[in-house]
Amino acid sequence: MTARHEEIADELRRAIDREEYTVGGLLPAETDLAAHYGVSRGTVRQAVASLTAEGLIGSRQGARRVVLAGRRSQSFAELRSFAQWAQTRGREASGEVVGQRYRPATQEDSVRLQLEPGTTVLHVLRVRGLDGEPVLLERTVYADWISPAVAAIEPGCPSVTQRLYETTGLVFAYGEHVIDAVAAGARDARLLGVRRTSPLLRVRRVTTTREGRPVEWSDDRYRSDAVSFSVHNSIGNNALARKTAG
Amino acid sequence: MTARHEEIADELRRAIDREEYTVGGLLPAETDLAAHYGVSRGTVRQAVASLTAEGLIGSRQGARRVVLAGRRSQSFAELRSFAQWAQTRGREASGEVVGQRYRPATQEDSVRLQLEPGTTVLHVLRVRGLDGEPVLLERTVYADWISPAVAAIEPGCPSVTQRLYETTGLVFAYGEHVIDAVAAGARDARLLGVRRTSPLLRVRRVTTTREGRPVEWSDDRYRSDAVSFSVHNSIGNNALARKTAG
Repeated sequence: MTARHEEIADELRRAIDREEYTVGGLLPAETDLAAHYGVSRGTVRQAVASLTAEGLIGSRQGARRVVLAGRRSQSFAELRSFAQWAQTRGREASGEVVGQRYRPATQEDSVRLQLEPGTTVLHVLRVRGLDGEPVLLERTVYADWISPAVAAIEPGCPSVTQRLYETTGLVFAYGEHVIDAVAAGARDARLLGVRRTSPLLRVRRVTTTREGRPVEWSDDRYRSDAVSFSVHNSIGNNALARKTAG
Repeated sequence: MTARHEEIADELRRAIDREEYTVGGLLPAETDLAAHYGVSRGTVRQAVASLTAEGLIGSRQGARRVVLAGRRSQSFAELRSFAQWAQTRGREASGEVVGQRYRPATQEDSVRLQLEPGTTVLHVLRVRGLDGEPVLLERTVYADWISPAVAAIEPGCPSVTQRLYETTGLVFAYGEHVIDAVAAGARDARLLGVRRTSPLLRVRRVTTTREGRPVEWSDDRYRSDAVSFSVHNSIGNNALARKTAG
């Protein structure tokens, strides 16, 4: 039997999925949620604690809490692998290599991976799934020094990041991401099960070790109906304020 | 006459635009750039200082510097208005209101703006340009308390953020953004001068004051061939390390 607070947590998750509570908006106050579900505030608090732990909702603003992310939304607040992100959202990540080969580094590969042009690098094309449905196409180029460890991984491994950490101790520490939108080409469409020219969210990224050494660069294309990204930012070092202060 | 270091800064900007030096990659060392352009290291240093001030390149990694952003790339490192971003990239931002009207807040408006449903809010549809070319369509809903100040602004104002700061002292302090990709509908296509179904980068955002009070929420659609976004992140609070430590 599922505990009542777990049922309520699940109802709240689904309400966020339906965008009944939207990202950046506020949940009702605990007293209102308690009245709505006919339970004690303590039960509501347990449900809210689960969602907070999952990163779906944030700290209080007065009596209410802000919705930080939907279940299909991947935060850029920290660098996380696709499998790690899926796990925090209670979803199952899968992966399948559909093409893999060694090639000499192109000019682009060599700039991004800080290698001499012509160095042998590993190109991998991978389809990633969420709960069994294809949502992401990764075209990744691995630096020569990590390629053998990548090539040794079985094609259906759900988390290459986790596996590389276990086999080599490698930690992906920093990521630079450039985000835009592209139309699905014939191959993208076939592998993702969408129509040609469907809009895809593209993330081109370089991931490095703690020392700033590039490990991989990748062109990742997401089905936009399945995954989005969220970013929170602030004025920080505010150019506007500086300009008008003088 | 343009100083030699300004010419070199300009050549480097164009090389970054052409993706000859890619985001996340490294510029050649100062000594190599000096040899390439046939100038002193001091001249190269002046050119590099300009690009650093513009946020295009970052701090040293050994003798070299990392490329942080292209001129068409908008960083999420801090919250900036479109006009502020364009200015840092040496580009001219423009804006034109193509539709504006007061409406009662829908359920969605009221959740995002923390208002009672039915409160009068202002909907504005704006086309934003870079160097005279339309690149962004903003569908913005303003909270009731700021709407009169927005409605008083002339339709061609290049920076609403700057104007609101000047007229009301309002500072946009925090932003929550959800990013995905959509296909251009008929109206989007006409206003942006692209084909219908072209991929657009969509950013839905809520912007708040320093106190967390929502000022506006917006559905922004960017021509993907004209603007991209960049994000830098790190493992920070690393879930992977925590998991395997136990």
